[in-house]
Amino acid sequence: MEKNIRLKENERVDDLEFKGLKIIQNKEGFCFGIDSILLSDFAKNIKKGAKVLDLGTGTGIIATLLCGKTELSEITGIEVQEEVYDMAKRSIQLNHLEDRFKIIQDNILNLNKYFEKNTFDAIVTNPPYKKKETGIQNEDTRKLISRHEIEASIEDFVKISKEMLKDKGEFYIVYRPERLVDLLSIMRKNKIEPKKIRFVYSNIQAVSKLVLVQGVKNAKPFLKLEPNLYIYDEKGNYTDEISKIYHKK
Amino acid sequence: MEKNIRLKENERVDDLEFKGLKIIQNKEGFCFGIDSILLSDFAKNIKKGAKVLDLGTGTGIIATLLCGKTELSEITGIEVQEEVYDMAKRSIQLNHLEDRFKIIQDNILNLNKYFEKNTFDAIVTNPPYKKKETGIQNEDTRKLISRHEIEASIEDFVKISKEMLKDKGEFYIVYRPERLVDLLSIMRKNKIEPKKIRFVYSNIQAVSKLVLVQGVKNAKPFLKLEPNLYIYDEKGNYTDEISKIYHKK
Repeated sequence: MEKNIRLKENERVDDLEFKGLKIIQNKEGFCFGIDSILLSDFAKNIKKGAKVLDLGTGTGIIATLLCGKTELSEITGIEVQEEVYDMAKRSIQLNHLEDRFKIIQDNILNLNKYFEKNTFDAIVTNPPYKKKETGIQNEDTRKLISRHEIEASIEDFVKISKEMLKDKGEFYIVYRPERLVDLLSIMRKNKIEPKKIRFVYSNIQAVSKLVLVQGVKNAKPFLKLEPNLYIYDEKGNYTDEISKIYHKK
Repeated sequence: MEKNIRLKENERVDDLEFKGLKIIQNKEGFCFGIDSILLSDFAKNIKKGAKVLDLGTGTGIIATLLCGKTELSEITGIEVQEEVYDMAKRSIQLNHLEDRFKIIQDNILNLNKYFEKNTFDAIVTNPPYKKKETGIQNEDTRKLISRHEIEASIEDFVKISKEMLKDKGEFYIVYRPERLVDLLSIMRKNKIEPKKIRFVYSNIQAVSKLVLVQGVKNAKPFLKLEPNLYIYDEKGNYTDEISKIYHKK
């Protein structure tokens, strides 16, 4: 731990075990999950020199990993929650990524205050999965905003992406299969045509709980269903693919 | 073969190996495939007494199997091609299904000449998968109409289903994954909410070539992704599930 990065109460530093990258998280708040790790892997073909946007960046896990996995020139994260923004800010310093990973504290709906339309080559996002009024709402406000559509809905995430992406720019999202119809319809409506889908399963018997979708702005319709991604094998160990994603192999 | 059912040139009778059911097909024309068999299985929970519609019934394979698998009271097939319609008509006689399986020769766009709106409890369809101008168009007109959107588009199939289904009526379709976004968007637009999706794979390594989708008219959004359906196991034999569907076990 470097001396000039201070940790606040309940915060800890997690080692990503990849190129020395680290992330500051709050033990009581919303910690990153496998969804962010898988999305970073799904988006790892983002091109050299790309200008990238990370919507609802949270602790900065996706943007941090993409700085390690790709040769993007610059990624901008936008995070509405001050406390989470502040953690991400310090993780950027900790990782010496100040030149490549910028962060804004604001609602994604205000992005047009910072950028012209048609600016980005790629957008990544792990948005809140749940509708405002559904399910058990978490009492902790940080978790609530990260999980529920309090500040912005899925339609907002896609609409702003449409505005911010260049023609043929790529959109990468991790989402829940039960809301796949919402997602695909909203993407098409906003001219971000879904091109690739990959379902994630805990194991071969399980029901899918996550789906990765890649869309391309103004592309023609033709969906490719990628092979399923399984997290555990029959013995309960990580599959080879997951071991590689976690850099354990 | 019963004496009073005559076969035309190039026709043959296939035994479905299930409750003695048989289907007349034309060796040179469009023969039914696994997609129809899988759709009949996917729709096997159609309720006792249901009034069902089969859009683009072809040789009548789906409707015939559903008469065996379910306790539906009546299924109506509509088929635009005279020659195929005529084969289905004779298969109905061959199977003594005249009381339960009716057939109309017409374009699905004319269904409102025969039925009031909100008439059916369930609709099944194995529509043409390909857009009018795409891919290698088959020279045989019968195959062309069965495979390409010559007489009616996917939007027509869904629109007419919306009109014909009762409130909360069920829609079952087999389709191609590459056009899944078309299908799901069009279903939602027409208030037939996609509720269940099941991808079909030749084997565990293969890319999915078929998808089964169930929608419910005027239902709330919440999609359930069903476990994948694999046709062959690692040794190249039918999986247990497929063996059951083909009544080999």
